[in-house]
Amino acid sequence: MRCRSDCTVSGMNAYQIIGKKRDGQSLLKEEIDFLVRGFSEGSVPDYQMSAFLMAVFFRGMGLDETLSLTRAMMNSGKVLDLKKIDGIKVDKHSTGGVGDKVSIVLAPLVAAAGVRVPMVSGRTLGHTGGTLDKLESIPGLRTVLTPEEFVRNVERVGFSIAAQSRELVPADEGMYALRGVTGTVESVPLIVSSILSKKFAAGIDAIVFDVKCGRGAFMPELSRAEELAGELVRVTSLMGKTGTALITDMEQPLGNAIGNALEIKESLQCLKGEGPADLLAVTLELGIEMLRLAGVETDRDRARESLEKLLSSGAAQQKFVQFVQAQGGDPRVIDEPSLLPASASVEVVVAPCDGYIKSIDARALGEICVDMGGGRRKRNDSVDGSVGIVLKAKVGDTVSKGAEVAEVHLRRDRSTVWIADLFNRLEQVFVFSEGPVPRRELILRRLPPQGPVRNS
Amino acid sequence: MRCRSDCTVSGMNAYQIIGKKRDGQSLLKEEIDFLVRGFSEGSVPDYQMSAFLMAVFFRGMGLDETLSLTRAMMNSGKVLDLKKIDGIKVDKHSTGGVGDKVSIVLAPLVAAAGVRVPMVSGRTLGHTGGTLDKLESIPGLRTVLTPEEFVRNVERVGFSIAAQSRELVPADEGMYALRGVTGTVESVPLIVSSILSKKFAAGIDAIVFDVKCGRGAFMPELSRAEELAGELVRVTSLMGKTGTALITDMEQPLGNAIGNALEIKESLQCLKGEGPADLLAVTLELGIEMLRLAGVETDRDRARESLEKLLSSGAAQQKFVQFVQAQGGDPRVIDEPSLLPASASVEVVVAPCDGYIKSIDARALGEICVDMGGGRRKRNDSVDGSVGIVLKAKVGDTVSKGAEVAEVHLRRDRSTVWIADLFNRLEQVFVFSEGPVPRRELILRRLPPQGPVRNS
Repeated sequence: MRCRSDCTVSGMNAYQIIGKKRDGQSLLKEEIDFLVRGFSEGSVPDYQMSAFLMAVFFRGMGLDETLSLTRAMMNSGKVLDLKKIDGIKVDKHSTGGVGDKVSIVLAPLVAAAGVRVPMVSGRTLGHTGGTLDKLESIPGLRTVLTPEEFVRNVERVGFSIAAQSRELVPADEGMYALRGVTGTVESVPLIVSSILSKKFAAGIDAIVFDVKCGRGAFMPELSRAEELAGELVRVTSLMGKTGTALITDMEQPLGNAIGNALEIKESLQCLKGEGPADLLAVTLELGIEMLRLAGVETDRDRARESLEKLLSSGAAQQKFVQFVQAQGGDPRVIDEPSLLPASASVEVVVAPCDGYIKSIDARALGEICVDMGGGRRKRNDSVDGSVGIVLKAKVGDTVSKGAEVAEVHLRRDRSTVWIADLFNRLEQVFVFSEGPVPRRELILRRLPPQGPVRNS
Repeated sequence: MRCRSDCTVSGMNAYQIIGKKRDGQSLLKEEIDFLVRGFSEGSVPDYQMSAFLMAVFFRGMGLDETLSLTRAMMNSGKVLDLKKIDGIKVDKHSTGGVGDKVSIVLAPLVAAAGVRVPMVSGRTLGHTGGTLDKLESIPGLRTVLTPEEFVRNVERVGFSIAAQSRELVPADEGMYALRGVTGTVESVPLIVSSILSKKFAAGIDAIVFDVKCGRGAFMPELSRAEELAGELVRVTSLMGKTGTALITDMEQPLGNAIGNALEIKESLQCLKGEGPADLLAVTLELGIEMLRLAGVETDRDRARESLEKLLSSGAAQQKFVQFVQAQGGDPRVIDEPSLLPASASVEVVVAPCDGYIKSIDARALGEICVDMGGGRRKRNDSVDGSVGIVLKAKVGDTVSKGAEVAEVHLRRDRSTVWIADLFNRLEQVFVFSEGPVPRRELILRRLPPQGPVRNS
């Protein structure tokens, strides 16, 4: 233990700030600034920050405190200036789910409608997939860009999807890693400040939040998802930006494919206006919100119509081709998906009886996909782009005994015992019912936009 | 951040244990062992331990968990075997106060009565003094002993007062330091396990707890002091040892002197049966409990009588002389207290009016003494043995305007501004009343002994 009770500046010290939060008092902006700055600079050690995070977990934060924390984190690094790019810069952020490849379709689609989309994305986290890992299954494609490359791509292509630059919000990197290993992930103010500090450091003007709710989400209960969505929108508007949120279903996976290259294939279909109906529907709903936030089209029906046209005309797909080229990827994959990594072995899961699919456990499927090699258990694990699962039926669909309900894309080197265990787990993912089961609602709640009205 | 989510052993990991405690579940013995062992060995990092400590602060621990934590900490290092020393080994532990020099009088007194006292003591902590720092103001006296020296002194002299050996309870050193800087000091299970693991590692059979209560204590409220005292005695008995507790007043300082050498002087008076009445009374009450625990004398009145005789006969003082010699100190201080460090400058605080002393803020006096140089603000600060305060009146005493209420022993190098500020603070420490004020009760509660009855 390196005891550091002497890290006081102008009468403040980390110890007293932790104690104040522990006792349920509100922290001042100056105290939060002191703590975040100290942590970034190394004068507030990890062990004090983790005690603080646990105290926040128990005591929560008021809106003012969350706002101060977001600002302090944002200001811990570079803040991009996108003013030289014309128009309103709009982003979408998902709280994470299984089979959620929306960004890969949505960003080029909305960019094709003339909106600038500077999208900072993440990697696989726990049981959920990560947009960057999916995109990197396209041969050659780079998602680690310099801030200058990122800005240039937004300007020239209309959008970019890239990793968080280490120059942006350095405080979040350490805090995020600490939260992951100290049981302080599921705290609304910590989630909100982590998301928003990164988004605002990337220079956006407006944002739509896709807050996932259900078994495959980090917030399984609707009440908690509403709390999170409300806080995201409120803090966004207090930061002088415009925010809105949809709460969408994540009880079963979104779309059919789970796994990096498999999800890219499904996204490519979607960019042609094909692909699973639920994925397309959620993408369009979020796209409509983005056009409205950008002031490009405020009428929902007309917005939907123009987005559908951009899919069917090939304009959205063309935007994606430009993006792949700009970030060093092989654009031939768009017409030849066989250039993507593919697994050596494909097995199937079949229905054990006639009936209806009652539920598909999204979280369990996400965990299985990680164990197949498609995600990470440790920070430096490599990700296998080829493996994954493709659902052949969704909740509410009828199935007959012996019919395929899922395709499993495996590595060839797995042992018989390993595969047997995998199939045991897969069979528990699906629950069947004799009687009809309603299809799931996709959009569970819509929050009205908050923040300044913008004109592009 | 060094992310270490991979420190799993036999299916357990620190992350899950933290999460379990965070969610209010009881931890298994194996989980607590895993965490403490991992922390001692370095596989569980500081930042996970501090998050765990904060979760314990909020969720508390059941008796079983506190017992497991105490055992795990005790077993993190060497456990002394005092069996080869005849008789029941009895200790006293105070939860810390201002002017609390009881140990310095009590240990030789009880040893003179034939009880073996292996006393592991502490240093100044926050606003409270530390027995070791006080003893080290005796020229040459060493309190850092090897475990062998400690055992030998207990055997030959009858008692020893020494610092916690680094070989004993190494887990506590890191946990204690973390608690000090992460706002997790005031947690009953953490206090209990920290105290008891050290006491039982030192090989004692029985112990009396002096739980301080009032403004100068770490537990100002009686209900919290009762909770702590009860838990200390219960866990002691579950460890197979015998424990009892007194809750004593720490609203005003104990005795008159505050400051290292000044407290040694007062202790020397006490060892002659002189000295302040309150200090003598608390010392005798604790001594009676120790004689009872040791089975030397179970009747309170007879125990008091024999202790008083050991003071008046010089036997207790003679024991102290042996102790000073055995630990390398200059025994001449016993007859010539002028050999102790003395301050260059003595100022006085006077009563501003005729009346009674209503209160004397023990905590504020403790803080003032630290700021005068008598305690530590940082771990490696050196302690000035000479400085301090001697009260000339206590709560309930009558004073006349202009009469001395305290003597202030200062370093000569203080500026006029510094001294003016000091006296401003000192004047706020004393509250006067026109009408009579009752003297404070010294013994607020007595807990009955728990644990096996022992025969020496």
